[in-house]
Amino acid sequence: MAKFFLNNILALVLLVVPGILVAQSATEGAERIIEVDVPAPSLSGNLLGTQGVQSAAIYLPPSYNNQPGHRFPVMYLLHGIFDDYGVWVENFEVPTILDRMISNGELPEMIVVMPNGGNKYGGGYYRNSPVSGNWADYIASDLVEYVDENWRTLSNPESRAVVGHSMGGYGALNLAMNKPGVFSVVWALSPCCLAPKQDLSLGNDAWRRAADIKEPGDIQNLLEDRDFYPIAILGIVTAFNPDPDAEPIYGDFPFDIIQGEIVLDSEAFDTFVDEFPVRQVRDARGALRDLRGLGMGVGLGDQFLHIPTGTMEFSQRLGAERVPHQLDVYVGDHRQLVADRLEHVVFPWIAERLVFSE
Amino acid sequence: MAKFFLNNILALVLLVVPGILVAQSATEGAERIIEVDVPAPSLSGNLLGTQGVQSAAIYLPPSYNNQPGHRFPVMYLLHGIFDDYGVWVENFEVPTILDRMISNGELPEMIVVMPNGGNKYGGGYYRNSPVSGNWADYIASDLVEYVDENWRTLSNPESRAVVGHSMGGYGALNLAMNKPGVFSVVWALSPCCLAPKQDLSLGNDAWRRAADIKEPGDIQNLLEDRDFYPIAILGIVTAFNPDPDAEPIYGDFPFDIIQGEIVLDSEAFDTFVDEFPVRQVRDARGALRDLRGLGMGVGLGDQFLHIPTGTMEFSQRLGAERVPHQLDVYVGDHRQLVADRLEHVVFPWIAERLVFSE
Amino acid sequence: MAKFFLNNILALVLLVVPGILVAQSATEGAERIIEVDVPAPSLSGNLLGTQGVQSAAIYLPPSYNNQPGHRFPVMYLLHGIFDDYGVWVENFEVPTILDRMISNGELPEMIVVMPNGGNKYGGGYYRNSPVSGNWADYIASDLVEYVDENWRTLSNPESRAVVGHSMGGYGALNLAMNKPGVFSVVWALSPCCLAPKQDLSLGNDAWRRAADIKEPGDIQNLLEDRDFYPIAILGIVTAFNPDPDAEPIYGDFPFDIIQGEIVLDSEAFDTFVDEFPVRQVRDARGALRDLRGLGMGVGLGDQFLHIPTGTMEFSQRLGAERVPHQLDVYVGDHRQLVADRLEHVVFPWIAERLVFSE
Amino acid sequence: MAKFFLNNILALVLLVVPGILVAQSATEGAERIIEVDVPAPSLSGNLLGTQGVQSAAIYLPPSYNNQPGHRFPVMYLLHGIFDDYGVWVENFEVPTILDRMISNGELPEMIVVMPNGGNKYGGGYYRNSPVSGNWADYIASDLVEYVDENWRTLSNPESRAVVGHSMGGYGALNLAMNKPGVFSVVWALSPCCLAPKQDLSLGNDAWRRAADIKEPGDIQNLLEDRDFYPIAILGIVTAFNPDPDAEPIYGDFPFDIIQGEIVLDSEAFDTFVDEFPVRQVRDARGALRDLRGLGMGVGLGDQFLHIPTGTMEFSQRLGAERVPHQLDVYVGDHRQLVADRLEHVVFPWIAERLVFSE
Repeated sequence: MAKFFLNNILALVLLVVPGILVAQSATEGAERIIEVDVPAPSLSGNLLGTQGVQSAAIYLPPSYNNQPGHRFPVMYLLHGIFDDYGVWVENFEVPTILDRMISNGELPEMIVVMPNGGNKYGGGYYRNSPVSGNWADYIASDLVEYVDENWRTLSNPESRAVVGHSMGGYGALNLAMNKPGVFSVVWALSPCCLAPKQDLSLGNDAWRRAADIKEPGDIQNLLEDRDFYPIAILGIVTAFNPDPDAEPIYGDFPFDIIQGEIVLDSEAFDTFVDEFPVRQVRDARGALRDLRGLGMGVGLGDQFLHIPTGTMEFSQRLGAERVPHQLDVYVGDHRQLVADRLEHVVFPWIAERLVFSE
Repeated sequence: MAKFFLNNILALVLLVVPGILVAQSATEGAERIIEVDVPAPSLSGNLLGTQGVQSAAIYLPPSYNNQPGHRFPVMYLLHGIFDDYGVWVENFEVPTILDRMISNGELPEMIVVMPNGGNKYGGGYYRNSPVSGNWADYIASDLVEYVDENWRTLSNPESRAVVGHSMGGYGALNLAMNKPGVFSVVWALSPCCLAPKQDLSLGNDAWRRAADIKEPGDIQNLLEDRDFYPIAILGIVTAFNPDPDAEPIYGDFPFDIIQGEIVLDSEAFDTFVDEFPVRQVRDARGALRDLRGLGMGVGLGDQFLHIPTGTMEFSQRLGAERVPHQLDVYVGDHRQLVADRLEHVVFPWIAERLVFSE
Repeated sequence: MAKFFLNNILALVLLVVPGILVAQSATEGAERIIEVDVPAPSLSGNLLGTQGVQSAAIYLPPSYNNQPGHRFPVMYLLHGIFDDYGVWVENFEVPTILDRMISNGELPEMIVVMPNGGNKYGGGYYRNSPVSGNWADYIASDLVEYVDENWRTLSNPESRAVVGHSMGGYGALNLAMNKPGVFSVVWALSPCCLAPKQDLSLGNDAWRRAADIKEPGDIQNLLEDRDFYPIAILGIVTAFNPDPDAEPIYGDFPFDIIQGEIVLDSEAFDTFVDEFPVRQVRDARGALRDLRGLGMGVGLGDQFLHIPTGTMEFSQRLGAERVPHQLDVYVGDHRQLVADRLEHVVFPWIAERLVFSE
Repeated sequence: MAKFFLNNILALVLLVVPGILVAQSATEGAERIIEVDVPAPSLSGNLLGTQGVQSAAIYLPPSYNNQPGHRFPVMYLLHGIFDDYGVWVENFEVPTILDRMISNGELPEMIVVMPNGGNKYGGGYYRNSPVSGNWADYIASDLVEYVDENWRTLSNPESRAVVGHSMGGYGALNLAMNKPGVFSVVWALSPCCLAPKQDLSLGNDAWRRAADIKEPGDIQNLLEDRDFYPIAILGIVTAFNPDPDAEPIYGDFPFDIIQGEIVLDSEAFDTFVDEFPVRQVRDARGALRDLRGLGMGVGLGDQFLHIPTGTMEFSQRLGAERVPHQLDVYVGDHRQLVADRLEHVVFPWIAERLVFSE
């Protein structure tokens, strides 16, 4: 969940030519980024108007072109809601950090792929949904296959990592649990949506406002007002509890509003809460234990209050199921230390765990 | 937390004459209620304009007047926010239930005292506060002394019970923990505010709306709109985190709003969360273990989502500190089964634990 | 888990004639008990030498013989390890209590069935096991059918309750979760084995002593020494983790002993811990919510330390899955208040929930 | 808690001359260790016969003698029970690792101090006790002052770290919580005794065997038999619940044994459990938040079963009190990955947080 007004800065800054190396000679990694159009058949039929071809940015390591026979491991970076891959390139300065670390010998060379995952409600949570599209399949199948076909990758799970921020942190963990055998090293930064608590709890009054929506115009008004929580809730509902027949939202709320008060629908509430990761650790423990690395970091001052508590509860559930993992709890907020953490914690940790040769 | 639009029905129904027996000959207990004006010196100096004399209703048992030398135990009933004692008399039909049970031999005779505890923000949570007034002292000292002086009570803790609903459930537990030695039997029905979770979490978007208040007119608007959560939050803040210097709210929020996002103030947050009962069980375990009875009941469908989870967490903390107690988790909402529970669970349970003779 | 040296007192006290009314004219319920031999085909093939016909005691209510056309609800009482039905009759004085309560009009008449559930290791935990026998099937099928065929019962779940103490408390909850549709009202007194904690944790040094067993003579020595924990652990292993091929114990330990230290076997440990009720609540939530009543009580001073903490954790899991229930936490130990609780809490509570007519 | 039979290997291997540089020219760090005798006035008056002068080993970094004006930060390493500083030198190969890392430029130079902390029951848990001696004061005052006076240290908390294994991991965390302002960077490896669970639970049958001790000869027998758990329990009792008047153990058990069963003594149990770190996080949160670094690591296959669960519960409590920290949960046992973790996780992490200049 990026700050709501943060947006497609990248599109303004770069001369983005899909599939074309933007600035090969630049010393700054930010300028050695390829933007590509990735076919996304997994998104076809979605009801939110999301395009069937999705942009992604690809970082090729400095010697990629000089070692034509060499294959590289791949790290995928998943952004947060209302973000796009620009958040990695511009805000968290990933290409600059990678170039510097590789140049200093602190990091071996790898390919880094930064897909987009947004839609009109902020994003599809990298989940499969008949309403928002099969985003998990898009990442784990469409995109991975596209990358492996078009670049010299080490195309096996041992050489494939996934890192996400906020919604993308959720996405990384969800892929690890529900798409086993694709990625073997996983880190979540400020991961949202691990447990329906605090601001993500149904007790957040914004759920009632979202549930008040009666017609398409109501949605339009929320979008125009950039009213964060109700819009994000529409994203949650269409991704976690989709219902193609429930116009205009195409998602179900796990409660009724009766005389202005929330009345839980017990069965729907079961279905809803069971989709959150803290309740899926047990069934996914086999897949999680098979990972080569699993880690997560969170700032105690995260503006999205469910994120620190959800992350710590997720860690506890991992421990209860004896899943090895790293937890990094620091002073900081939702975004401010992410670049620092990537450089000093996440990238070195991933490099230690990925396999760099065939 | 009563339904917001529920209100002073009692005042319209009864010819209320303070200190005068309303309808002595009535067979219905609802008509054998005395309304009294209780001096409340503990509330003096409050900044919310709450009166220094408070109304209360008193139920005298059927044979009170026929047994002039007999003394009775006393049960105090504490109502929820935006309620007054009318909720016991009218909605939960306490006098009718008491009369029937006493008449059937299911309950020994006792005096029942129903104070008011409301203010402009819904109520003072039966807590001491320089802003909302010292409501804990009012109940535990002013009111108890007034009752013991004016009626033939068994004036010792062993013969004194306290029962509360919603805010009053919180109040009953808070008095048990922080005013030890006054009440010895305690039951909380749908108790609010045991833990700052779900709708009571700072993640509830309504906190941001409450924190937007800049001037008295903003408060007035909320009150006129009967906008439940922001008003209730003002009540919480003035009772749990009062600050007589912080106009116009006279209370502090444990966070700042920076660029529209909540940023926790770590020290203020400590102070705030430490006031909630789930975090006070350990220090109060001695007082709680000394009780003759401690119980709580909650409906799984409570509209105020923090109430079931908070109650269950409170029970768990009691267990961890080895405090004997009863927990009753049932299908039902915030109010619908309260009268049923009073008759079939709470009153018989209290009667078994109170001492009925000197 | 009864005190180890407590035993078949009943056999010495009563002239027990299977199927014959022992003392029809006695005013004491303890003397109006029928002992019966119940065919137990579900136990056939067990490897512990447990008999295929099991004794049980049946309490018929005072007017059973005077109302030949009347049918009664049935309450089943399951005893703890190293006990037999004598614990109900002699120690907890159930027939005396029932007679008194029925006579005083405090309890409607019902049939009470007290099966035996013991074996050479203390008991089969009322679970199905190829080693200790299919005790769950014995209770839920063999015994219930036998009782319904031979006495005038209301033979439907709404009129059938199950109550257990210690191992039997576990058994009652396990039947509720894993044999849905047989009993509709369930109470567990001091229930053992809800979670593998404290004395039931693998950290109890007694597990190492049990794991030291190499040959049948080692088992015989433990039995002769009445060495409680290692024997009870054999019962746990044969009931929870049976292995007909693993002589002489016929059960597997979820760890290896290497150089005198416990080394967990991860997969075996999964299998083992997943059998405990705290980990089965989620999958059984549908069955548990369908009950007409579910309750449990525990003394804070229980000698078996895992029992209070396991019970409270089980309550918490029930709450997390929104399963209605009652929890009664009191000052007392494993046995001393059981008779008191049966009379003042459990029997009235069951009577309120059972259906007494067709 | 080291393996019981592991012991003073170092004394046999090195020609240990207190205060004298053992092998200045050796390329192996293991041979460039100084053994010193540290006055320990804090231990005077202990009732276990522990000496008032304690050995310690000191690692001086390679250029210590070549930079006579330079001051170095200090890292203290606290060993586990039944170990001495030899475990660091021989088993975990700390000097070799340090030399290699410093030589490779992976670690800046620092002084490393390895005190002894053992006694006849395995050790004093680095706690203050009138029975086992004031070990917390010995480390935080006697030893730190001795080191700062005799070597060129940066003598302030910002340049002082403490790392411990097993009992020493407990000790490091306990010093961080209860001796604030001495160490600023803290890491616990396989820390014991954070919570009284599993093998450390009172439910471990070994507590009953320890409680059976009646006379000094009983203790002697346990020691001769090297019966791990009862001896370790004597260490726990004399350190956590000492009682100089309670001969021959000089410590109190928080329960009575009645008819062979444990009966908790409620008040004594309070006192006992309140001493464990999971229950002290809240009161120590200020001190813990002030640290420059706090971390802990644990293997899921630790032979001492309370260690993984206690560590994860401690992490959770830290999170609940918003204390920044790192948690590293890995596949491994109590000792096997400690050397690997020191090299790849702990030492680099400490180096990033310590202040290396005045």
